[in-house]
Amino acid sequence: MATLADFGPETVAEVKQVRQVVADLHKQLITWNLVVWTAGNVSQCLRTADLLVIKPSGLRYEYLTPDSMVVCDLDGNVVDGAEAPSSDTASHAYIYRHMPGVYGVVHTHSTYATAWAATGQNIPCGLTMMGDEFGGPVPVGPFRLIGSEAIGKGVVDTLRQYPHSSAVLMRNHGPFVIGKDAEDAVKAAAMTEEVAHTMWAARQIGDIIPIEQSDVDRLNDRYQHVYGQH
Amino acid sequence: MATLADFGPETVAEVKQVRQVVADLHKQLITWNLVVWTAGNVSQCLRTADLLVIKPSGLRYEYLTPDSMVVCDLDGNVVDGAEAPSSDTASHAYIYRHMPGVYGVVHTHSTYATAWAATGQNIPCGLTMMGDEFGGPVPVGPFRLIGSEAIGKGVVDTLRQYPHSSAVLMRNHGPFVIGKDAEDAVKAAAMTEEVAHTMWAARQIGDIIPIEQSDVDRLNDRYQHVYGQH
Amino acid sequence: MATLADFGPETVAEVKQVRQVVADLHKQLITWNLVVWTAGNVSQCLRTADLLVIKPSGLRYEYLTPDSMVVCDLDGNVVDGAEAPSSDTASHAYIYRHMPGVYGVVHTHSTYATAWAATGQNIPCGLTMMGDEFGGPVPVGPFRLIGSEAIGKGVVDTLRQYPHSSAVLMRNHGPFVIGKDAEDAVKAAAMTEEVAHTMWAARQIGDIIPIEQSDVDRLNDRYQHVYGQH
Amino acid sequence: MATLADFGPETVAEVKQVRQVVADLHKQLITWNLVVWTAGNVSQCLRTADLLVIKPSGLRYEYLTPDSMVVCDLDGNVVDGAEAPSSDTASHAYIYRHMPGVYGVVHTHSTYATAWAATGQNIPCGLTMMGDEFGGPVPVGPFRLIGSEAIGKGVVDTLRQYPHSSAVLMRNHGPFVIGKDAEDAVKAAAMTEEVAHTMWAARQIGDIIPIEQSDVDRLNDRYQHVYGQH
Repeated sequence: MATLADFGPETVAEVKQVRQVVADLHKQLITWNLVVWTAGNVSQCLRTADLLVIKPSGLRYEYLTPDSMVVCDLDGNVVDGAEAPSSDTASHAYIYRHMPGVYGVVHTHSTYATAWAATGQNIPCGLTMMGDEFGGPVPVGPFRLIGSEAIGKGVVDTLRQYPHSSAVLMRNHGPFVIGKDAEDAVKAAAMTEEVAHTMWAARQIGDIIPIEQSDVDRLNDRYQHVYGQH
Repeated sequence: MATLADFGPETVAEVKQVRQVVADLHKQLITWNLVVWTAGNVSQCLRTADLLVIKPSGLRYEYLTPDSMVVCDLDGNVVDGAEAPSSDTASHAYIYRHMPGVYGVVHTHSTYATAWAATGQNIPCGLTMMGDEFGGPVPVGPFRLIGSEAIGKGVVDTLRQYPHSSAVLMRNHGPFVIGKDAEDAVKAAAMTEEVAHTMWAARQIGDIIPIEQSDVDRLNDRYQHVYGQH
Repeated sequence: MATLADFGPETVAEVKQVRQVVADLHKQLITWNLVVWTAGNVSQCLRTADLLVIKPSGLRYEYLTPDSMVVCDLDGNVVDGAEAPSSDTASHAYIYRHMPGVYGVVHTHSTYATAWAATGQNIPCGLTMMGDEFGGPVPVGPFRLIGSEAIGKGVVDTLRQYPHSSAVLMRNHGPFVIGKDAEDAVKAAAMTEEVAHTMWAARQIGDIIPIEQSDVDRLNDRYQHVYGQH
Repeated sequence: MATLADFGPETVAEVKQVRQVVADLHKQLITWNLVVWTAGNVSQCLRTADLLVIKPSGLRYEYLTPDSMVVCDLDGNVVDGAEAPSSDTASHAYIYRHMPGVYGVVHTHSTYATAWAATGQNIPCGLTMMGDEFGGPVPVGPFRLIGSEAIGKGVVDTLRQYPHSSAVLMRNHGPFVIGKDAEDAVKAAAMTEEVAHTMWAARQIGDIIPIEQSDVDRLNDRYQHVYGQH
């Protein structure tokens, strides 16, 4: 098995920085009400090596520190860290191996996104915010058992059919969300829950007015290329 | 392009004070649960010059400071500030140009207000709080794409039909809210979400009992002229 | 008009203490998510004089201090304080004049309680917590305009028909809640919203199983006489 | 009556430690939004003696300290503590007497779990998280009045029929939850509310897709034996 000593100083420095980033982002999961107790996890893939940094399994959020984050290779083997990694590590690793450009993955069981997942329905695209962030509906992925990379494969297969979406609602389970780094994925996880909640609430009071696909495309294009600081 | 140096000391002083006010009010959007991540923005129009102060685009709320707020003229051009202004700046500017007496504008995607917007329905007036704050139902505005002043025009056109309302629910998008200053607009944005949530919840358990228009008018008149400290 | 100087040192001391209590309890309205912005108010009636201490009108919760609380007589006239008192002062005063044993009154627009009020329905008694706190359903009161003691009269008239209840849902408006002191009333206001929310949620998924009246009576008797520290 | 002086130094030391644990865990009930005002309670059974440590009756959460926790024997008699113990003490004691391996009990009135309880329906098992934590649906228990051990008996009788569940929704009342210690029970109480909320939300938008029992069994087995740090 490899250890961190097998990697160069650039990677050691990146590990240190990413441990801090990933530990801090778990607090954002709490801030935006996306997780309960120990459910949910964030990882980031390194730029300088085929390694990822992920939450340890079953630790309460208030006890998470940069040092408790676990470094694994992209087959899910532990390379550095005293704790066992998240049960979802193999699925995070699968996503990084198969999706170039993805350097952040988040999994939550956030309430309304998971409600859509329990009924096997995509979240319909009735919000400009959905055009921006997801380029259409948020898709449901297949039912898969935890503990292998089967969930990761289900995520990747679903995103190939929905190339603009950053989220998949795994059936009867909850959202998996990708980003260009971990912060970007956490943002998309927060947006996933927000649009899930809003579309759920809209469904209770009437028919959701669909947005024309040409308008969805325009929103998505602008958001991906113009929004924010450049 | 103008810079802040083209304006007198009164305006420079007002910019400084309003930057603080607008930065602080963004925290109120979080406190009252009106925004997620970077969505939503507050602006205030100056009294001493045709300028507005608004949130920068795509910055996380915890990183907002008075200095990061952006000063623009009423055509949406940046006059002072290191960051790109909110994507909604042109619409805020349009509102200030066309609505004398309005010195504060807020935009959110708050959950229940946006749910009404996604179904294209006004929030019916079934609460004394709605008589107070909106003088009747909260109206839905047209569907408009972001990035130009088209949203601002949709807001102004809708408010001309609903002169007592301080909020418009832009269809499939979310609320735009006006006030006599930014704080007044943030208050109205919080009220918009509260009445949207309450009327939504009422709709699930029975028929909302309408309030007589004469009573709505009395409530609105008293609230606008008697309530609070004078 | 009377001033505080017309009252003895016992009353001056009680005013000082009750100002602190009432200011602190307004923070509990925020903690338990019962109010938005400046909506809602708490008062306590003195033991040593026919005076009440109440929130000033239209001030943001974060700016409330003991000194900003207003002292009024039981006709609603200001006796001490620099601010205008709550618009609901005359109704609080009416309740104290007509209900011996009541020394605390709270008014909120809490979301789910107000949703029941907007449909004109009592909250049905389907929870042991409701038997404990309200001795049956939480009743709806009549529609009344704000600004006079008409709301207070509507509260008192309704509670005479529901002698075990500590709350009335004023139609299209929101809950008014009484207690043996202000803290007791704030507790009952928090319970009112909690049972309103729970019964509302239950109504969405099936038929609420009623509790036998004899069991409700037993619960209410025990809670009022055995629960807590004696 | 026994006092703490009748027990050895090991038990005195354990009481001190468990008082701290139980007081701290009450804060988690607030963090995860499981209780209002004074409703809800946590206890832990000692390893070194047939004693339990439980919340005092009717005290606000912000005033709870390790010293205010009450030590009782497993018949519910007070052994140490200045306050009266929770009204549910006899039921906690009954559970410890009849369920070997259970050292933590939590009772809440959390909103959505209690909504299911008010309609007398089990929470259907439509989430992998439910397979993990409860091994199937979360069962409803019988209607029982508070104040004796009748509730505890209802909990134990129900769990005998649902041996993988850690929670029972007492009808018209709220959840009782067990664990291998108090922290484990608080975690399960948080999970109970989360799955109650998610399944409730799913029910509003469509049919919940059931999970095959063989998959539920696999999830439950893995979660109980592999998840977390070992």
